[in-house]
Amino acid sequence: MDLEALYRDLHAHPELSFQEHRTAGIVAEQLSALGLEVHTGIGRTGVAGVLRNGDGPTVLLRADMDGLPVREETGLPWASTQTAPGDDGNPVPVMHACGHDIHITCLLGAVERFAETTDDWSGTLVAVFQPAEEHGGGAEVMVQDGLYEKVPAPDIVLGQHVTPFPAGMAGAHPGAAMAAVDAFEVTLHGRGGHGSRPETTIDPVVMAASAVMRLQTVVSREIAPQDTAVVTVGTLHAGTKNNIIAPSATLGISVRSFDDAVRARVLDGVDRILRAELQASGSPHEPTTDWGERYPVTVNDVEATARVNAAFAAEFGEEAVLEPGALSGSEDVGNLATAAGVPLVYWLLGGGDPERVRAAIAAGTVETDIPSNHSPFFAPVPQPTIDTGVRALVAAAREWLA
Amino acid sequence: MDLEALYRDLHAHPELSFQEHRTAGIVAEQLSALGLEVHTGIGRTGVAGVLRNGDGPTVLLRADMDGLPVREETGLPWASTQTAPGDDGNPVPVMHACGHDIHITCLLGAVERFAETTDDWSGTLVAVFQPAEEHGGGAEVMVQDGLYEKVPAPDIVLGQHVTPFPAGMAGAHPGAAMAAVDAFEVTLHGRGGHGSRPETTIDPVVMAASAVMRLQTVVSREIAPQDTAVVTVGTLHAGTKNNIIAPSATLGISVRSFDDAVRARVLDGVDRILRAELQASGSPHEPTTDWGERYPVTVNDVEATARVNAAFAAEFGEEAVLEPGALSGSEDVGNLATAAGVPLVYWLLGGGDPERVRAAIAAGTVETDIPSNHSPFFAPVPQPTIDTGVRALVAAAREWLA
Amino acid sequence: MDLEALYRDLHAHPELSFQEHRTAGIVAEQLSALGLEVHTGIGRTGVAGVLRNGDGPTVLLRADMDGLPVREETGLPWASTQTAPGDDGNPVPVMHACGHDIHITCLLGAVERFAETTDDWSGTLVAVFQPAEEHGGGAEVMVQDGLYEKVPAPDIVLGQHVTPFPAGMAGAHPGAAMAAVDAFEVTLHGRGGHGSRPETTIDPVVMAASAVMRLQTVVSREIAPQDTAVVTVGTLHAGTKNNIIAPSATLGISVRSFDDAVRARVLDGVDRILRAELQASGSPHEPTTDWGERYPVTVNDVEATARVNAAFAAEFGEEAVLEPGALSGSEDVGNLATAAGVPLVYWLLGGGDPERVRAAIAAGTVETDIPSNHSPFFAPVPQPTIDTGVRALVAAAREWLA
Amino acid sequence: MDLEALYRDLHAHPELSFQEHRTAGIVAEQLSALGLEVHTGIGRTGVAGVLRNGDGPTVLLRADMDGLPVREETGLPWASTQTAPGDDGNPVPVMHACGHDIHITCLLGAVERFAETTDDWSGTLVAVFQPAEEHGGGAEVMVQDGLYEKVPAPDIVLGQHVTPFPAGMAGAHPGAAMAAVDAFEVTLHGRGGHGSRPETTIDPVVMAASAVMRLQTVVSREIAPQDTAVVTVGTLHAGTKNNIIAPSATLGISVRSFDDAVRARVLDGVDRILRAELQASGSPHEPTTDWGERYPVTVNDVEATARVNAAFAAEFGEEAVLEPGALSGSEDVGNLATAAGVPLVYWLLGGGDPERVRAAIAAGTVETDIPSNHSPFFAPVPQPTIDTGVRALVAAAREWLA
Repeated sequence: MDLEALYRDLHAHPELSFQEHRTAGIVAEQLSALGLEVHTGIGRTGVAGVLRNGDGPTVLLRADMDGLPVREETGLPWASTQTAPGDDGNPVPVMHACGHDIHITCLLGAVERFAETTDDWSGTLVAVFQPAEEHGGGAEVMVQDGLYEKVPAPDIVLGQHVTPFPAGMAGAHPGAAMAAVDAFEVTLHGRGGHGSRPETTIDPVVMAASAVMRLQTVVSREIAPQDTAVVTVGTLHAGTKNNIIAPSATLGISVRSFDDAVRARVLDGVDRILRAELQASGSPHEPTTDWGERYPVTVNDVEATARVNAAFAAEFGEEAVLEPGALSGSEDVGNLATAAGVPLVYWLLGGGDPERVRAAIAAGTVETDIPSNHSPFFAPVPQPTIDTGVRALVAAAREWLA
Repeated sequence: MDLEALYRDLHAHPELSFQEHRTAGIVAEQLSALGLEVHTGIGRTGVAGVLRNGDGPTVLLRADMDGLPVREETGLPWASTQTAPGDDGNPVPVMHACGHDIHITCLLGAVERFAETTDDWSGTLVAVFQPAEEHGGGAEVMVQDGLYEKVPAPDIVLGQHVTPFPAGMAGAHPGAAMAAVDAFEVTLHGRGGHGSRPETTIDPVVMAASAVMRLQTVVSREIAPQDTAVVTVGTLHAGTKNNIIAPSATLGISVRSFDDAVRARVLDGVDRILRAELQASGSPHEPTTDWGERYPVTVNDVEATARVNAAFAAEFGEEAVLEPGALSGSEDVGNLATAAGVPLVYWLLGGGDPERVRAAIAAGTVETDIPSNHSPFFAPVPQPTIDTGVRALVAAAREWLA
Repeated sequence: MDLEALYRDLHAHPELSFQEHRTAGIVAEQLSALGLEVHTGIGRTGVAGVLRNGDGPTVLLRADMDGLPVREETGLPWASTQTAPGDDGNPVPVMHACGHDIHITCLLGAVERFAETTDDWSGTLVAVFQPAEEHGGGAEVMVQDGLYEKVPAPDIVLGQHVTPFPAGMAGAHPGAAMAAVDAFEVTLHGRGGHGSRPETTIDPVVMAASAVMRLQTVVSREIAPQDTAVVTVGTLHAGTKNNIIAPSATLGISVRSFDDAVRARVLDGVDRILRAELQASGSPHEPTTDWGERYPVTVNDVEATARVNAAFAAEFGEEAVLEPGALSGSEDVGNLATAAGVPLVYWLLGGGDPERVRAAIAAGTVETDIPSNHSPFFAPVPQPTIDTGVRALVAAAREWLA
Repeated sequence: MDLEALYRDLHAHPELSFQEHRTAGIVAEQLSALGLEVHTGIGRTGVAGVLRNGDGPTVLLRADMDGLPVREETGLPWASTQTAPGDDGNPVPVMHACGHDIHITCLLGAVERFAETTDDWSGTLVAVFQPAEEHGGGAEVMVQDGLYEKVPAPDIVLGQHVTPFPAGMAGAHPGAAMAAVDAFEVTLHGRGGHGSRPETTIDPVVMAASAVMRLQTVVSREIAPQDTAVVTVGTLHAGTKNNIIAPSATLGISVRSFDDAVRARVLDGVDRILRAELQASGSPHEPTTDWGERYPVTVNDVEATARVNAAFAAEFGEEAVLEPGALSGSEDVGNLATAAGVPLVYWLLGGGDPERVRAAIAAGTVETDIPSNHSPFFAPVPQPTIDTGVRALVAAAREWLA
């Protein structure tokens, strides 16, 4: 398999959550060609391949497949120019701005290695290509659609995520490794009218603006400084015309946390503030909330994580093993492990140009110079990222498939 | 002409600025049927009709034709369910939420009366049906497209606007009668990234929210209490996904004023605040400004206004003559008078259910009970509004066409 | 009487509201020396002098005597360096920052003229020197202390206020001439704690800051643009140490309005916002409000105002008569007229250096170049201000004391 | 020594930073009575006692002596009713709201034990009673005033701080144990004027309010969620009268951090925002900054901390040893160790009523039910707090004075 060509093709053809038809087709075709038992359409667009190779544990390797509604600005020859229907049916640009194309490529590469080396290992390999990690809870949807009736239930769930750490590195953080997320849209209802007669209206733009400023205080004042929480108002939309005061404004909010008490306090604070803003505005309405993703904390099994990191040290050398710490990003990979009642190890894979990242670290300019996941400029270097990702999956799985 | 049927048809088929093709067709057809010389396509979708009737002054009567991107919620049998391409090409709902359908209907009705009573008056009547009053400066566009080369230049420009005042009333305010407006869209550029890593971004939603709160201080602190100004942020749009921090936010702002010094101070204050918000955020960017409507103060000629109000008193009785005061809404009708170097009288026409409006005034609940122009609930009562509007146009024009 | 020397002495020795002991002593001494019947201690520190001169109307001329807790920065040779106990008992700087020293000086000068010219007029002159106009409602306090049992009730109340208009000018605005004021202190209670543990507190500084920003929207969004209202948060005090989060914050607010409905709506809006801020903060407390001055609209009798302005035109020439418009400042002089059931005329007296003010008007820099009342830099030019003020009082009073 | 009586007396007589004359007198008297060599007036009001007892290491035990400008609301029989001159010379209430009275009492008690048991240990004990920990950097001031020329330089610096953890417990966190602090007062200059004429002013209250809201975004948006920082605006003072707009507002800010890069970024962000607020307001001024405490991170030596915690386990049992984690409070005790180039162990001492604290932990109401340091309600239970504190000091010091 020409993994780099595959990667460029996937990158140029990103698909939004639950729209991964082309991607799933390519994945299924490759898995079949490698001789795996292939299941498609699990959880709408999910794909799973099974490679049975004698007695031994079952290892589930997971990749996610969806892109994001971001207009790519990397300038790469293989940059995406795709659009697709967004939530409201109107076309939006699409980009693999979170590196799921890397995840797919590496997992197909790893399957190929296992398929080619069946004499060297024993057990069952399950490769899961999940839809809708970004938007829709694809892992849970696959489980509910009978994933573990169609493929053998695993003894361990493994997976990886590409990040701007230097390419060539990989490593997992034991314990709470990624944040819980609660995503929702809240509509604040005021009263519309003509822009020249604010006194006849309850201005939702002012209400929303005041709410956004007040919401900053949840993190700055209500959470203990040593605790970790994020409240991001990612979207704010109100109005159709600059001289019409709209009847309402809608905020898209995501909350991250690593601890249930903190999570509860943040969500309470957000709710309390939004309600108070309506009262401050004199609006008789309640906020309308539409819940989106609600992913739990991603918890890496401590013992299994130590095994995986040791395998990476053996494979790549000690100096190539990352300790990424706890990340404020969120994942639904944990649902695959929880549903099977087995441990999870989810590691980070370096994808940044090593020289550029190390220079930025030295200069203290990482945040301005190195585009992070979800940025329109996010662009992992294909190599050694893909090679490292393939080897990391193989090395980790071999811990169980000896 | 069945004016009420015409009105209901126009109301059910609103069209956005410069898209008034169906409306213009109906207008042209009616004018032709009444025997006027008809000019179409002036300023893209504008129509003018000329009725020459011997010696005497030329009176220009003006109506505007466009609807607004508002989703109608009146529940009327003739409510609009239309959509049309909005600024970004995506479909938006359309509604005659500002009553231009009343204006068209009344002007056609007035033309019919003049056409039927040519023995009673002398001079030239020019009926102008202007496109794009809401968005695009249709009056100026018609002038620049040669309006006064195609129709006789007027000696006086007259027009009216329907409002929630009680139906059956009409009247003009002498002097500065409606505000200047400056409408623009400003984009504040930050830096995008993942919602869980705000420290790698410059959050444009926070920047926009802080800007909106700060902008309130222009009116509350920078303008003398006795001066009049409005700063409305009618639209605020940022982001595509609640866990992506967007690279920028766009504010649609309209500013109203009645005085050049106030206008300059407000615009300076807005600009200063927006620039400072970028600095507060640590953004290296300048705001990007896209100017929209910039209409001057609508100034009613004092002497001509006295004549028109006197004609209304004679036609309807003293008690039916409104003194609306200076309105903070804006209009481009003044450009038709300025271009011809002649006086303007632009009056307000009552369209509210008289009993309901008077009860609301008595109860002090006008602002909550009576939907104002641009509201999704704005619904003038067809009668006596249309009848009064027709008679007001005829009575005012007869002052010059005696 | 050497009026300029008197003025410099008064300016150098300002006294706070109801502390005007030295000032009242000087006033009483001068009135006695001029042969008036003198009443002291009316309303604590108020003084009234009566000059009976045969039959005819009784005219009340009023001056106010108190200074302000402002640290003078005029740099004048006669600048104040005084301090006095403030509201909390601690010493505060004191300055005649509102020009009441001019008012006293001019009224004593006018009394002197009347005392020296008793052959030229007939009637009764009552000169009232009121305490506590700035803080305490001295006019009402004098009335309640029996002013009109001690001196003859007037047929007309006259008075003046010095402003930065050019010296040499004077004039009164008919009708609603000065705003109603409602002044109050509101304490917002949160929960105190250590500055490093915000999560254990309810931070009153953040609550107060959010409240101040929200309060701007009362004027910017809730009042019709043509209506006039001011909401000023003049004081904001919270905390004793930068690493202790205080239990509460106190805002000193003053509201101005010219209309009862607007006044009610503004006060409702302020109250609603303050309560909502407590809710947004999660505070279980209600705001604590301590009401201060609540002065009504100052209404000049239309007919009497015309007489006074005509007298000024005769005295100074037409071009020296001001039309100041309605002012957003407030006064309690109206209580003296209301209590007697008689008309009031209260005019403005120019005190600005004429050349400097006119140059600033021409350059559009009045607001930055000309210090206004209550500024630490407020400094009327002694002449022709004092001379004009004396003549204005005499000319106005002679309209009734012919 | 009757330690409880001493404690109640100290609690009832708190003194502000560098005003600890009465306290220092009591300390010196007690040290003398116990036979120590006593040095007073080190760093203005600091006291040190030396107990030489043969060969061996020198151990420095440190207590701090100053109270806080807080009005005590504990209702205790021994509650403080003291006042003292504050920063501006006006009297402020004073309270031992941070428990330094416990620190003094325990250290005197520990010295007594060492003085009574000289046969059991060998070496030199230095007891340092430091002034001005809250305000003034007393540790640094003692060092600069020649502390280590007057007393033997130590081999280890030990100390403790009482907190609301359950009384009977003690323990130290290895490594970065307490935050760096940067405290400062910033004055934002606008332009004053009359409250009714905001357009002639640059309102510093609005500027300060907007700044406070904006400053929340430093922690909520500019710091990585996993990093720790606190920005507290502890004081905000502007204005003297509700109808005068003041010329400036002053914010007392304290910043906490555990990492130099975070510290730099927060301070940069605060500075950037304050400057931008002046620009947003149109003020031509720069902010004026007056720096206060700037204490470094308190770093506990890892090896020495392990010894101290082991000594506590032996003394009190394993279950009584706290792991407090890193605290966001700050301390200058580290300067005593840094100046001597020796390790530091600074532990926390429980002072909360054990039943009440444990019930609150169980109920999740610690933050609302248990007053924290600097609260007007902060009241450690005298016992077993004092007994535990004495034993902790003795046990820890004996590790070196075996």
